[in-house]
Amino acid sequence: MPAKLVHHAYGKFDVRLTKVSRHPDRHELKELSVDVQLYGDDFAATYLTGDNSKVVATDSMKNTVYVLAKRHPIDSIDDFGAELVRHFVGTYAQVSSAEVWIKQRAWQRITTNGKPHRHAFVAGSDELRTCSVGYVHGGVTHHAGFENLVVLKTTDSAFTGYVRDEYTTLPETLDRIFATSVKATWTYEPELPADGWNERFTAVRQTMLDVFADHKSLSVQQTLYAMGEAVLDACPHVRLIRIEMPNQHRIPFNFEPLGLKFENDVYVPTEQPYGFIHATITRE
Amino acid sequence: MPAKLVHHAYGKFDVRLTKVSRHPDRHELKELSVDVQLYGDDFAATYLTGDNSKVVATDSMKNTVYVLAKRHPIDSIDDFGAELVRHFVGTYAQVSSAEVWIKQRAWQRITTNGKPHRHAFVAGSDELRTCSVGYVHGGVTHHAGFENLVVLKTTDSAFTGYVRDEYTTLPETLDRIFATSVKATWTYEPELPADGWNERFTAVRQTMLDVFADHKSLSVQQTLYAMGEAVLDACPHVRLIRIEMPNQHRIPFNFEPLGLKFENDVYVPTEQPYGFIHATITRE
Amino acid sequence: MPAKLVHHAYGKFDVRLTKVSRHPDRHELKELSVDVQLYGDDFAATYLTGDNSKVVATDSMKNTVYVLAKRHPIDSIDDFGAELVRHFVGTYAQVSSAEVWIKQRAWQRITTNGKPHRHAFVAGSDELRTCSVGYVHGGVTHHAGFENLVVLKTTDSAFTGYVRDEYTTLPETLDRIFATSVKATWTYEPELPADGWNERFTAVRQTMLDVFADHKSLSVQQTLYAMGEAVLDACPHVRLIRIEMPNQHRIPFNFEPLGLKFENDVYVPTEQPYGFIHATITRE
Amino acid sequence: MPAKLVHHAYGKFDVRLTKVSRHPDRHELKELSVDVQLYGDDFAATYLTGDNSKVVATDSMKNTVYVLAKRHPIDSIDDFGAELVRHFVGTYAQVSSAEVWIKQRAWQRITTNGKPHRHAFVAGSDELRTCSVGYVHGGVTHHAGFENLVVLKTTDSAFTGYVRDEYTTLPETLDRIFATSVKATWTYEPELPADGWNERFTAVRQTMLDVFADHKSLSVQQTLYAMGEAVLDACPHVRLIRIEMPNQHRIPFNFEPLGLKFENDVYVPTEQPYGFIHATITRE
Repeated sequence: MPAKLVHHAYGKFDVRLTKVSRHPDRHELKELSVDVQLYGDDFAATYLTGDNSKVVATDSMKNTVYVLAKRHPIDSIDDFGAELVRHFVGTYAQVSSAEVWIKQRAWQRITTNGKPHRHAFVAGSDELRTCSVGYVHGGVTHHAGFENLVVLKTTDSAFTGYVRDEYTTLPETLDRIFATSVKATWTYEPELPADGWNERFTAVRQTMLDVFADHKSLSVQQTLYAMGEAVLDACPHVRLIRIEMPNQHRIPFNFEPLGLKFENDVYVPTEQPYGFIHATITRE
Repeated sequence: MPAKLVHHAYGKFDVRLTKVSRHPDRHELKELSVDVQLYGDDFAATYLTGDNSKVVATDSMKNTVYVLAKRHPIDSIDDFGAELVRHFVGTYAQVSSAEVWIKQRAWQRITTNGKPHRHAFVAGSDELRTCSVGYVHGGVTHHAGFENLVVLKTTDSAFTGYVRDEYTTLPETLDRIFATSVKATWTYEPELPADGWNERFTAVRQTMLDVFADHKSLSVQQTLYAMGEAVLDACPHVRLIRIEMPNQHRIPFNFEPLGLKFENDVYVPTEQPYGFIHATITRE
Repeated sequence: MPAKLVHHAYGKFDVRLTKVSRHPDRHELKELSVDVQLYGDDFAATYLTGDNSKVVATDSMKNTVYVLAKRHPIDSIDDFGAELVRHFVGTYAQVSSAEVWIKQRAWQRITTNGKPHRHAFVAGSDELRTCSVGYVHGGVTHHAGFENLVVLKTTDSAFTGYVRDEYTTLPETLDRIFATSVKATWTYEPELPADGWNERFTAVRQTMLDVFADHKSLSVQQTLYAMGEAVLDACPHVRLIRIEMPNQHRIPFNFEPLGLKFENDVYVPTEQPYGFIHATITRE
Repeated sequence: MPAKLVHHAYGKFDVRLTKVSRHPDRHELKELSVDVQLYGDDFAATYLTGDNSKVVATDSMKNTVYVLAKRHPIDSIDDFGAELVRHFVGTYAQVSSAEVWIKQRAWQRITTNGKPHRHAFVAGSDELRTCSVGYVHGGVTHHAGFENLVVLKTTDSAFTGYVRDEYTTLPETLDRIFATSVKATWTYEPELPADGWNERFTAVRQTMLDVFADHKSLSVQQTLYAMGEAVLDACPHVRLIRIEMPNQHRIPFNFEPLGLKFENDVYVPTEQPYGFIHATITRE
């Protein structure tokens, strides 16, 4: 028999839950999607022979997520993720390591009579706060991030001086629209205090927004790097950050055949194809 | 030949555009998707014989949208829609009537140093402001609305007293989560002043949010009607409103087999199937 | 109080079900999504006062779909739809009329050793077979159709002779790619025999494919009409057909700035914007 | 300055193209989406200083894809991918390595009068044939695969004997529906002949379908492994295969509260949450 199982993992993905915390003066609402993935050599048996005696059913993982969601305050997804990986590794000897990915959707309070309502909410944007918590070699590791943070600036973005050859038709520009859907994931320094995850997240996100807004951009790459560098500068708890910035192009409408002139006024948003820039930045 | 052409229309759909207005102290950003549809008996020829001599190419409709977007301030999509239908009916004798649907995506200014930025934006939710402007029998008609306004309240929603028979398994509840993606379209009274569309829109939307948040709901139907009634009460320029409220169910997680109790705390969001309620409400 | 409820309806949508029929020599697989909508004046009470005593819970509608799916052979969605509307109108006095929309996804048998497998399947395309069955004024009406039938022909499609004016930049062409996602809905003649729905459906669909493939197209409109005309000609049980043909454009890649020539060889598929043509054709 | 750029890459993604080859007796149609990604230390300059002098604009990459698509027969995406990476590494000294991912959508000929049409096509399923071709250390590496191959078997799938503890509510079953959307990626042995990519692909895919259909499954894991093992057995040109099999659950409808019995007949298809199994299998 020529085959060998070299890597395997399994879990339950997209376990969606809503948690409501009912305080006298206001209700708190959290909505999460949780992915759980378990690793362990003992799981090889079911692949090779169909022996399921060590298999934790993915349906049971799902149940576990809801039970722990009930017991845990879920102040932050990072804390809840740590609770989950500790549970799976601590409960089942055959689980050598575990990984949990959580995505949190934003809800905002509806404003009525100029004040935030105590129990009525309106959905936010498609931006998701994310975390990835792992249990490896006896320790918990924390990664966090966000995705679908769609930002756009109408000026302070140039693109000139690039290679011009027989395949080049793009005109140089000193002033273009810069739009992108930012995805960022960062690794936290180990041994951080258990509380403070929400503040750490907010600091990274706001730093990136600030730089995006104010940067005089000579290329997407330069702005991306400046955003990552600023995070490392402002957030000592971040050790490494990976940033992905796929372009959401706004192309000048070609008014020329219609006898008019494009004056940085009317653009065509397009989705395909798109430039895709990504990089990882770390402390020296 | 047994066939007869009884209804036909054609147009260009999903013409997407970005319009930037550059003021000294701030840039304004508008992003629209425009659908144009034209009607006219003369268009029958191309169906029946392939004679295209009266056909306005949909590609030309697209060009027209960009040209008019350049010339028009686009203070409101309602105004821009009226400009478009007037253009098509006024320019081509073969166009007896025209309809334009516009969807506007929300962008918000990025906040830096506590202040809204002058030219950097972050995408809002999936909510779309919409309008439908028609030119029929010599007059322009205005409809407006929104879609994907996703709202949720954690209490003040009951559902009891409904038919119980052999097909009924749903338990009655005095306190459930009420979540829905509201779509509303309303018809404006004729002959309204040309300015004021943004204020009219905002008044309808805020009225609906206020009622949704504060209503003591006995059924989705009752809340829907209360929202529509309040609009007609608060907004004299609205003649008729249609509201669609598909449920976005949050189902109590069944903790019983796990030896725990559901305490209005942890829910499962589900997408299929969904209850769908809609109604049209008008002035008496 | 200025408001009046003029139209209302409610139901359960996207009730998804899988039905397996286990025959000795083969298994049959059907996958449906069912929408149920009920009408009746008595439902006004819940809108106006929150009195739910006449309300059939949408959760009960869902249960009913599954119970009837168990009892019914579901040889065709049209038959099953008729069963459903008869049930709702026959069971509840407050239901004056009912409408059911069903979508059926295609599964094909996996071929192993050159033969169709008895119980293993592979998903087909996104094409959906649809029906809409109504119970109005004591009779059952049958509409049927399909959507997402994506077809493309690489030649025999021209577009010339259309209006040329200051908004026109599209070049005329004698040979272009014609691609579209066809949606068709037709109304059957009343009082057709209860069996035969599958054969009727197949006849309409194949007729439309045949015409699409072989037609020498002078415009999308002309081909659309030819397809509808052929259906009325070949299918005496069809009284009226509505066809929607949104373009899925394949735009010639502009090789000119790169010193090459487009030779009807390389195209750019685009999704926005798109031309949208639709018409209704009936017997004279 | 505390930051260091440790990894970076960029490219143009989702370059969509249609290639028509016009033979006297038939037209051939290929539709691809191409992602190009370039690597090289010299690209660091634009991140750090905005110096774009080494940057190949992603727009130029797009142009290159179309130019090479024109010149190349595209008999297989694997061949075309190799052409692309060789071009980018061969043309630009600053490109140390390149990677290209291509996805190909299936089109089938429309059958008219019982025969495949010469130039009219109908879209296939959402299944995509994929390849990933890299140029590293002077050699071209070939990976291939598919995704969205949705398969379902109505019997020969059991799941019993797994861990039962306080988190377990799933009943054991000897006969369930097994449905999944298979994604597979495999690595080819180096130095294969340049022709034969299509045959190699077809052999892997058919082997996996055969095993899926006929396997007596004790767990998803066991079937997944059997599929991979069979590929390594039947396809000597494959060195390693990674298979992902997310469950597409069909849950028995709970007829009990309605006084009926589930008899392996009516199921509820659900999308969230889903079990996710993946593994990599290689030659010993």
